[in-house]
Amino acid sequence: MTADELTHLLHQEIPLARALELAVETAENDCVRVRGPLAPNLNLHGSVFAGSIYCFATLAGWCLVHAFCHRHGIPAAVVLRHADIRYLRPLTTAPVAEARLPEPEAVASFLTALLAGKPARMVVPASLAVDGRVAAQFSGEFVALPEARV
Amino acid sequence: MTADELTHLLHQEIPLARALELAVETAENDCVRVRGPLAPNLNLHGSVFAGSIYCFATLAGWCLVHAFCHRHGIPAAVVLRHADIRYLRPLTTAPVAEARLPEPEAVASFLTALLAGKPARMVVPASLAVDGRVAAQFSGEFVALPEARV
Repeated sequence: MTADELTHLLHQEIPLARALELAVETAENDCVRVRGPLAPNLNLHGSVFAGSIYCFATLAGWCLVHAFCHRHGIPAAVVLRHADIRYLRPLTTAPVAEARLPEPEAVASFLTALLAGKPARMVVPASLAVDGRVAAQFSGEFVALPEARV
Repeated sequence: MTADELTHLLHQEIPLARALELAVETAENDCVRVRGPLAPNLNLHGSVFAGSIYCFATLAGWCLVHAFCHRHGIPAAVVLRHADIRYLRPLTTAPVAEARLPEPEAVASFLTALLAGKPARMVVPASLAVDGRVAAQFSGEFVALPEARV
């Protein structure tokens, strides 16, 4: 799926993605980058709201896993089961979140379960940076439920 | 601070709180409950978006800590440093998040640091339920920076 297709899907199906003014910037096989403007995502300290940061990281990870399933021809409902996020410094610029596939063994194990029609689990890291330094570090456990099982 | 004052503050300072259509329902000393409607918070599975769930939990916790500082007469910038969230079942009803103060020892330790004008740290649990069962369990580490130090 292209970046534009993913943006369109999110805007159509998740009203909050529109409120975040989120756009998928790049959608490569192993990396998805999403971005949004600063204004709709501010907090009362003049930096990006912790909840917005989390949403950008979550949606980058979701797009990565959703596009992975699509690319392998297996329609699946992708849901987030668990997440952990650490805020390291205030994010004072327009948010850009980047999610990456985990190590090859984890991806292979995910694909094996998916091809067998079973729920497949993958832990995806994502981060946002400010001035070249990590501002927030996210880790999300996504589960893909092949559609026959949904 | 009253529930209405907290709602007003969030709507004024955090655009995403308006997008969530979040309202603070009750603000007691040891418990804050926030709610919002289902429509602006839906995902593509017809349940509440994981990011919305996180925002409701985070803002319930933030209000609890912010109001605590205010009640003790210590203006402080309250920020989220770390959070962990577990999604246990789909939330198919209008989201209601409840945050509670942790055990008395943790609250006392937080207050001691605050009164000394030092950054004070508190881990606040919050949850959202559906049909009487927990749908999401959140734990957020908030840090209050007394304003003289901000």
